[in-house]
Amino acid sequence: MASLNENYLKLQAGYLFPEIERRVKNFTAQYPQADIIRLGIGDVTEPLPPSIVKAFGKAVREMGKPKTFRGYGPEQGYSFLREAIAENDFKSRGANIDPSEIFISDGAKCDTGNIQELFSSSAVIAVTDPVYPVYVDTNVMAGRTGAFNKETGRYDRIIYLPCTEQNQFCPPFPKERTDLIYICSPNNPTGTILSKDHLKAWVDYAKENQSVILFDAAYEAYITDPEIPHSIYEIEGAKDVAIEFRSFSKTAAFTGTRCAFTVVPKKLAGETSSGEKILLHNLWNRRHCTKFNGVSYPVQRAAEAVYTKSGRKEVKSMISYYLENASLIRNALTEKGFKVFGGVHAPYIWLQTPEKMPSWMFFDQLLDKAHVVGTPGAGFGPSGEGYFRLTAFGSRKNIREALKRIKEKI
Amino acid sequence: MASLNENYLKLQAGYLFPEIERRVKNFTAQYPQADIIRLGIGDVTEPLPPSIVKAFGKAVREMGKPKTFRGYGPEQGYSFLREAIAENDFKSRGANIDPSEIFISDGAKCDTGNIQELFSSSAVIAVTDPVYPVYVDTNVMAGRTGAFNKETGRYDRIIYLPCTEQNQFCPPFPKERTDLIYICSPNNPTGTILSKDHLKAWVDYAKENQSVILFDAAYEAYITDPEIPHSIYEIEGAKDVAIEFRSFSKTAAFTGTRCAFTVVPKKLAGETSSGEKILLHNLWNRRHCTKFNGVSYPVQRAAEAVYTKSGRKEVKSMISYYLENASLIRNALTEKGFKVFGGVHAPYIWLQTPEKMPSWMFFDQLLDKAHVVGTPGAGFGPSGEGYFRLTAFGSRKNIREALKRIKEKI
Repeated sequence: MASLNENYLKLQAGYLFPEIERRVKNFTAQYPQADIIRLGIGDVTEPLPPSIVKAFGKAVREMGKPKTFRGYGPEQGYSFLREAIAENDFKSRGANIDPSEIFISDGAKCDTGNIQELFSSSAVIAVTDPVYPVYVDTNVMAGRTGAFNKETGRYDRIIYLPCTEQNQFCPPFPKERTDLIYICSPNNPTGTILSKDHLKAWVDYAKENQSVILFDAAYEAYITDPEIPHSIYEIEGAKDVAIEFRSFSKTAAFTGTRCAFTVVPKKLAGETSSGEKILLHNLWNRRHCTKFNGVSYPVQRAAEAVYTKSGRKEVKSMISYYLENASLIRNALTEKGFKVFGGVHAPYIWLQTPEKMPSWMFFDQLLDKAHVVGTPGAGFGPSGEGYFRLTAFGSRKNIREALKRIKEKI
Repeated sequence: MASLNENYLKLQAGYLFPEIERRVKNFTAQYPQADIIRLGIGDVTEPLPPSIVKAFGKAVREMGKPKTFRGYGPEQGYSFLREAIAENDFKSRGANIDPSEIFISDGAKCDTGNIQELFSSSAVIAVTDPVYPVYVDTNVMAGRTGAFNKETGRYDRIIYLPCTEQNQFCPPFPKERTDLIYICSPNNPTGTILSKDHLKAWVDYAKENQSVILFDAAYEAYITDPEIPHSIYEIEGAKDVAIEFRSFSKTAAFTGTRCAFTVVPKKLAGETSSGEKILLHNLWNRRHCTKFNGVSYPVQRAAEAVYTKSGRKEVKSMISYYLENASLIRNALTEKGFKVFGGVHAPYIWLQTPEKMPSWMFFDQLLDKAHVVGTPGAGFGPSGEGYFRLTAFGSRKNIREALKRIKEKI
């Protein structure tokens, strides 16, 4: 029989979200009448804004006419989109990113999952704890970790950087030398952010230790304080040490439309065992060309519309709506006596479970009593135990109803 | 510095198609007036058919309304599409594939590139020669091969199955035990097909030798003879030994729209070094959930429309158009004295270069003299040397003009 990649067998149970789906499905089978409110998976609920729908539809019609039809596009994405991104997401904030350093893709999940392929199987990785499971699981699947240790809740050979109330959810520097460090700000799942000073310290650390920072900024659109960096490239020297991941999913309601991008600066290098320096940009480009065929043309036109005057306005108002939801959740939970973090510059609220009860137990309780679905902190790593994530995605009506039920039944 | 995946350094020059682009770009810079006709990259040229545009546009509008908006879909694809595929592509041809065995993706390039991740790094792979480069390159990048041997034009540790005029482009069985065998029919690049008997022999071989066949059927829609299988699952027992890749790219003009699918039967297993049997379906599902977030909802609706009555009719007429192009090319080249293969059940024509001259030399000659772009056979493997691929994609007018130029100038 064909011999398998046994690293897959090290993976723990289901991937977090399918496991949640499984439990909800079981519950629904038992109580088909229950009106479940989902604040679990970080999935947007507001529709695509009008300017985006318009551009999307126009491009679809172009595909139906001989003169405007487009076949394969550039694997890296169309220039019109890469240029709009460089101008609006980076230059406008003082970050000098060239359009050619931007790779359009169909999702930040894919990109953050695939990026590890460029590095050696012995590369040492560090992740924050709690952490978005994709960073960890994709390294497990690639054989870059040891077995899962049930006692510690950790994989051997991964360096975990605990983010707790004590350090205000700012990851401490690794004590060991690491090749790759995954950082997410605004953070999924804690909803907290890293300040300019924190990011500067990380860039300096990476320079000194010759590490590469894999910076996930998928939630940058939720930042409300102008002093907080949206991109790591707002920090001087970051182009020498960091790759950045962005997405239209949470910014512009693209979770079902699929478009994201990754910045791999042209200066950023890694090295071979013989000490040869190789540009990561070239490796990622090679990967992109060999294993990917570009994003749907109409989807790229839809993403371009995010940067038009009307698109920007519509997107901003949508984000304000979610942030108001977040504020309602924060206030209601605080009033109820919960300890609450995040939710100010992010669509995620990170709450401490009552008396730090196990988070899957709290999950079941919330589902059973209030018919509200959230995400157990333990699903994000051992330091997530005793915490729980609620998202601010949802209609105002649902959010209010969920909070009412939590107030009355929990 | 971060330590790199050095397997990337084994890759030869550029990936074939970017290298072609580079040469065309250089030529165009020198002769900006030249009216270049592209019969190189296998990219469709006819627009999306009306029924597909209609369904695509409708789904885009749904995304703009609160009641019909969709966020994350199932990673494996929506049931409406998986069911339409199971019914129309498989059951209608006597192949019993369940919708749950079908995984929707954004491209067969991605799927054929990613599938190797499920297998051990010591798995032995066999490819036909010539071959679609993605099968080889993705295994090189994963470290499943040795170095490239410039003398033989082969990577060490890959088993090459030469497909030549002598064996009518039917791959011979490997002499060594192999874990994985990549087979593509109708074939890219040769445009030739495997008959039912050939496929049966391969399924029997795989059973006897406990190998997995990775069957790429991206061009099945071009088959004109009802006796030739469209799916390997038309062969009894294939569900025990084969994974099949399909795409809407060449079938329904989706090269720029992006949708494909992969069938991983639930019975198909691999094994660990300790002899434990694991279902490949579960591993692929885990990969899909961890590294992929589903295909754009409007794109899935567009793909669904391929199976409507009007969609099927439109698609069929588009394919007939390309096949008539193929016939024109075959005839003109034969008349000119070329030895020509394929192009009957496939959009590709595989021609022998004059006196078997090196194929990159013929590429340059064709570009210089006739301003026609094709694909050098050598780009597909050592047995492709002395051959050249032309595609039947293009307007009738362009095809006629290209053939006129070839007739007069080559």
